[in-house]
Amino acid sequence: MADPSISPPLTRSSVEAAHRLIKPFIHETPVLTNSTLNKLASTPRTAEELAGTEWEGRDPAKPVIRFWFKCENFQRGGAFKVRGAFHAVERLKREPGWEEAGGREKGVVTHSSGNHAAALSLAALTSSIPAHIIMPSNSSPIKIAAVRDTYLANLTFSGPTTPEREAAAARVVAETGARLVPPYDHPDIILGQGTAALELQEQFARLNQGNDKKKLNAVITPLGGGGLISGTALACSPSSPEDEPIHVFGAEPTLDGADDARRGLAQGERIDWIGPTRTIADGLRIPVGKVPWTIIHDRKLVRAVYGVSETEIKRALRLVWERMKVVVEPSAVVPLAAALYNEEFRALIEKEGGEEGWDLGVIFSGGNVSLDALEALFKEE
Amino acid sequence: MADPSISPPLTRSSVEAAHRLIKPFIHETPVLTNSTLNKLASTPRTAEELAGTEWEGRDPAKPVIRFWFKCENFQRGGAFKVRGAFHAVERLKREPGWEEAGGREKGVVTHSSGNHAAALSLAALTSSIPAHIIMPSNSSPIKIAAVRDTYLANLTFSGPTTPEREAAAARVVAETGARLVPPYDHPDIILGQGTAALELQEQFARLNQGNDKKKLNAVITPLGGGGLISGTALACSPSSPEDEPIHVFGAEPTLDGADDARRGLAQGERIDWIGPTRTIADGLRIPVGKVPWTIIHDRKLVRAVYGVSETEIKRALRLVWERMKVVVEPSAVVPLAAALYNEEFRALIEKEGGEEGWDLGVIFSGGNVSLDALEALFKEE
Repeated sequence: MADPSISPPLTRSSVEAAHRLIKPFIHETPVLTNSTLNKLASTPRTAEELAGTEWEGRDPAKPVIRFWFKCENFQRGGAFKVRGAFHAVERLKREPGWEEAGGREKGVVTHSSGNHAAALSLAALTSSIPAHIIMPSNSSPIKIAAVRDTYLANLTFSGPTTPEREAAAARVVAETGARLVPPYDHPDIILGQGTAALELQEQFARLNQGNDKKKLNAVITPLGGGGLISGTALACSPSSPEDEPIHVFGAEPTLDGADDARRGLAQGERIDWIGPTRTIADGLRIPVGKVPWTIIHDRKLVRAVYGVSETEIKRALRLVWERMKVVVEPSAVVPLAAALYNEEFRALIEKEGGEEGWDLGVIFSGGNVSLDALEALFKEE
Repeated sequence: MADPSISPPLTRSSVEAAHRLIKPFIHETPVLTNSTLNKLASTPRTAEELAGTEWEGRDPAKPVIRFWFKCENFQRGGAFKVRGAFHAVERLKREPGWEEAGGREKGVVTHSSGNHAAALSLAALTSSIPAHIIMPSNSSPIKIAAVRDTYLANLTFSGPTTPEREAAAARVVAETGARLVPPYDHPDIILGQGTAALELQEQFARLNQGNDKKKLNAVITPLGGGGLISGTALACSPSSPEDEPIHVFGAEPTLDGADDARRGLAQGERIDWIGPTRTIADGLRIPVGKVPWTIIHDRKLVRAVYGVSETEIKRALRLVWERMKVVVEPSAVVPLAAALYNEEFRALIEKEGGEEGWDLGVIFSGGNVSLDALEALFKEE
């Protein structure tokens, strides 16, 4: 992947440029609304529901919320990750000297157990560039099959820990000369992921034709390594000084300390390590990366990050499946859970949105969950 | 509901008129495509896969299929049923003398354990007309709650058999003077259900802009009572004699004789009774009705009906959930299962579609399945 020092600046117009580069390769995913979920979110929670939570005894917030769900679960590869992967590959192809130095033959490499592995394999395959993927040996058989058989990547297995994975990647780089494409901690990846929120704004405008003033009030995304949220924050930053800002929020699971970004913002310093966490939101089990942190924290482009419990994630998941009839993975509903159940967030929307309320964009980040995994998820209840 | 004798004629233009009447009340549901499913359907099955089926030893068919999925699972109430219900209520409101005779106060009545009960309750509520719903006492608690609490219908419980349900409905009619709105065996319901296929044709044209000649080759729907397929057949009948026809096909589960329409067509006579069937396609456990039969059989507007096994329904269900990321109920995927696994149908598409193949519309009839029911479904495997 392109050397970060020659990446475009981290701005809204760089996200727009990224969008032009990757448009031929990605879907413009649909934006869905749902009146049942709007009604639910706009109904104050009861005192009984708040009992036992940190908001026990507090007056329930009375926000008015209209959701606009950006369905990246319908994206190629089943997640937003192809946006960043295609952007990284397209940028690499344009890097001066890369092709001449045999870059096209050497290919790309990454280590990932999840959606980024499939996304990079697909992007590389599309440009006939070899992809070397290191997957932990305990990865799901479905994901292994997708990477190896569907996207024809060169697969290497490693131990499950980050040092083992990094060492395996370093070996592949040394052997092949392939370029490392990290999953989130790189400007090109961030700019690619930001294109989802850019599309969402365009689609919102189209869906509200005849009402030019109408603009999203805010967008909320899941927060794991931070690629999606920091790209979203760039895409939502004002294109001119007189623009009303679109606020950007993040959502994380709180189980076992997976809410590292929320805690990091509170203490004013990035938390770069979290222990093993059992959260079902398996895409969000990693600490936020360095480059995303500069956007989230240093540049203050993310207003706040909210935590949700596992029970809240499961309730939101069930609502989306049963009411919206849409298959999403647990990580994808963490922002919806925050809007439905986190009283801090709800009180803020009540306060700032008032009676008119907020048009809230929600990024459904992915839909890669097998029926068997889902079954296991709800069996535990 | 309107007396059948004063219903509009069963023609394409009556479906168009029905569409104009109900448009304010229904969603134009999206049409989705999926390259993975196209590829799968356009790949010949292997000899091993055909072993043990009625096609064992036969050369696998080599059809080329492009699917266009009409997603009525995203419809209000989670199924196409609101189309017929709103049409029935709108027609009733326009029936001469109905309002003067106190029809608006007397309301409507039906017996149903499923989607029609919710659909009629919603349509009646929208027009502030009381709905009296008879539900078998063994109906699912979710469906009971929807009808009673969300759509505010007057609920009566009955025994589970058809005679018990009909007797309870007759009692309610006698007591209240409400008008009976049957779930499928009535022209107004059929015309309403046909509007889904009408929209699908319009959407297909929009999605293929710049290619005026391009038209769907065929549409396939699930077949239970026959309201959906017979409305679809009317909507797909030529609007002028020089029009290429859009072929209409039906699909049924074969378990325990639930393929009554297929068998009825073979013997040239409607089968008006089927025993209890355990098929997981719970919307298709009923025999085809009299009025639908006149369209399917007498007027020959349905070309053929194909049967599929329970295993095939489950495989198709899993594909739609895991690959398309869309929640559909088992009944909804029966047509897809036919296109993927029924060699008769596949051979016909190969023969008539040739190398260019067919653009095949598939009606995803509904998405009302709870996560718990789904879990039970796949646990048995």
